[in-house]
Amino acid sequence: MGKLRIGIAGYGNLGKGVEFAIRQNDDMELVGVFTRRDPSTVVTATGADVFSMNSIADKKNDIDVLIICGGSATDLPKQTPELAKDFNVIDSFDTHARIPEHFTNVDKAAKESGHTALISCGWDPGLFSLNRLYAESILPEGKSYTFWGKGVSQGHSDAIRRINGVKKGIQYTCPVEAAMDAVRSGSQPELTTRQKHTRECFVVAEDGADLAQIENEIKTMKNYFDEYDTTVHFISEEEFDANHNKMNHGGFVMRSGMTGADGNTHQMIEYSLKLGSNPEFTGSVLVCYARAIGRLSAEGQTGCKTVFDIAPAYLSKLSGDQIRASLL
Amino acid sequence: MGKLRIGIAGYGNLGKGVEFAIRQNDDMELVGVFTRRDPSTVVTATGADVFSMNSIADKKNDIDVLIICGGSATDLPKQTPELAKDFNVIDSFDTHARIPEHFTNVDKAAKESGHTALISCGWDPGLFSLNRLYAESILPEGKSYTFWGKGVSQGHSDAIRRINGVKKGIQYTCPVEAAMDAVRSGSQPELTTRQKHTRECFVVAEDGADLAQIENEIKTMKNYFDEYDTTVHFISEEEFDANHNKMNHGGFVMRSGMTGADGNTHQMIEYSLKLGSNPEFTGSVLVCYARAIGRLSAEGQTGCKTVFDIAPAYLSKLSGDQIRASLL
Repeated sequence: MGKLRIGIAGYGNLGKGVEFAIRQNDDMELVGVFTRRDPSTVVTATGADVFSMNSIADKKNDIDVLIICGGSATDLPKQTPELAKDFNVIDSFDTHARIPEHFTNVDKAAKESGHTALISCGWDPGLFSLNRLYAESILPEGKSYTFWGKGVSQGHSDAIRRINGVKKGIQYTCPVEAAMDAVRSGSQPELTTRQKHTRECFVVAEDGADLAQIENEIKTMKNYFDEYDTTVHFISEEEFDANHNKMNHGGFVMRSGMTGADGNTHQMIEYSLKLGSNPEFTGSVLVCYARAIGRLSAEGQTGCKTVFDIAPAYLSKLSGDQIRASLL
Repeated sequence: MGKLRIGIAGYGNLGKGVEFAIRQNDDMELVGVFTRRDPSTVVTATGADVFSMNSIADKKNDIDVLIICGGSATDLPKQTPELAKDFNVIDSFDTHARIPEHFTNVDKAAKESGHTALISCGWDPGLFSLNRLYAESILPEGKSYTFWGKGVSQGHSDAIRRINGVKKGIQYTCPVEAAMDAVRSGSQPELTTRQKHTRECFVVAEDGADLAQIENEIKTMKNYFDEYDTTVHFISEEEFDANHNKMNHGGFVMRSGMTGADGNTHQMIEYSLKLGSNPEFTGSVLVCYARAIGRLSAEGQTGCKTVFDIAPAYLSKLSGDQIRASLL
């Protein structure tokens, strides 16, 4: 069998993460990157070819799986169903509330065209979803908890930057250690939003800006900050540029369950990620699921899938015999 | 659809764990327990019916999935292929080196009879295997580590009890915290057997036994203790009976991987279990996989599977729509 031929639609941080990940899998090759920008202005990190999104359909016979690296707010709801007409596709759609609607749209397009699609792949949604499903299926009596961070929330950082007098700003979501320890103890606490996470902001203010006013606007911002304990640090632009350009992230999925004769045996399942780079890790997840989608398509399966529908063996480049002998 | 009808073959600690777990899943019912003992001498924890193993084939039309709770050393290699002639079967076969051979035997029997089988299900092999596969597929460049404990090793406890002068004995396998922290740091250490785990033994000696001799025999025992730092505590029978009757266990699967332009971004995946009761938890895993095997069989799939071959959605009693809306 030849190598799995992958295309990348959209070339931001996530597209680069996918590009790096493909290089780590010798059963795959990168056909090229598709961009809405002028292709001549885009230089790829590994020297991959760059094409215009306008002519992507010309490549439909050259690509086994297309990984779509657009944003969830406006790009993916349009792009994924549209591109599923010509390609097997994968996206990382992460607007949880709109997943059922997105699934329906992509499923329809993929079934009509005979393609295979996977939506909402990555780590949350994605690996965290898998761990919630496994843990709740194994321990039906119990409580599940998801904690995120420490890591940058793009939406909250954007919200800070919209405030008058803010030159640069970034927001870290931080899980509360005491809350996680309470979960691990087996007490199955009811935790409020405020008890689970804190928000830490680093802001570079414009010259002469009213710092007290900025801090107050952040801390009282509805939906974003008002339900959290929020800390605001004003720092210099030099410090900001030097220390706040990382894309690390992570989090924890925990299931505290009870079993046994009287239902009082405590069983604890915990899954955690500590990511040096969120887009590089998400790219790695997308690429290993591209292998699965390529195989499912070759088997003749069509329509939209989620990580719940993919048997783990499809993710590995090893054979069934090999994984049973070495990993079971 | 009616409830999934489950049978339990073998009624020790694991069989009891399965019995308790079935009670937590309202889409299942327990048909009965099958034992090699005289059924009239067996009283089940939840009042389930008890039948003789000799007449198990009489029930082949009354059971959708049979969970076989025998031992890996001698029971399962014979029982699972034999029972796969009449039933869809699940076992927790855990002799890693013999899994390929066991798979072949069970696969043949299940395919010939048109049944569906799952072997080596539980937490290791089982959930730990899944986590090794997911993590290595996502991060192909890196190192994997499995740590076990703190928990009782039955084999090592048995070995202690065979020593002259030992009345009662139990052995705990303990992961070395410093080794786990080294892994979490991203240094990808090469760890020897001695560096990963210690062994802690609690012994009740016979009156007048030579304690120094017992301690020496334990610590130098080939294959079991000689490659480990082992601690031996001599305690009273009262203390032993009071404090060493728990079946708690657990462990950690870690993947330390690298991604990115120069392959130097550290990414860490960690999965851990802290189990109040090993057999109750293993029973819970087996029961949720019974749901999957019942469904695969209803779809007409036959032959032997492992946890690698089961798409996660099959484990949940929720529908595809429900899991996408609530867990993704």
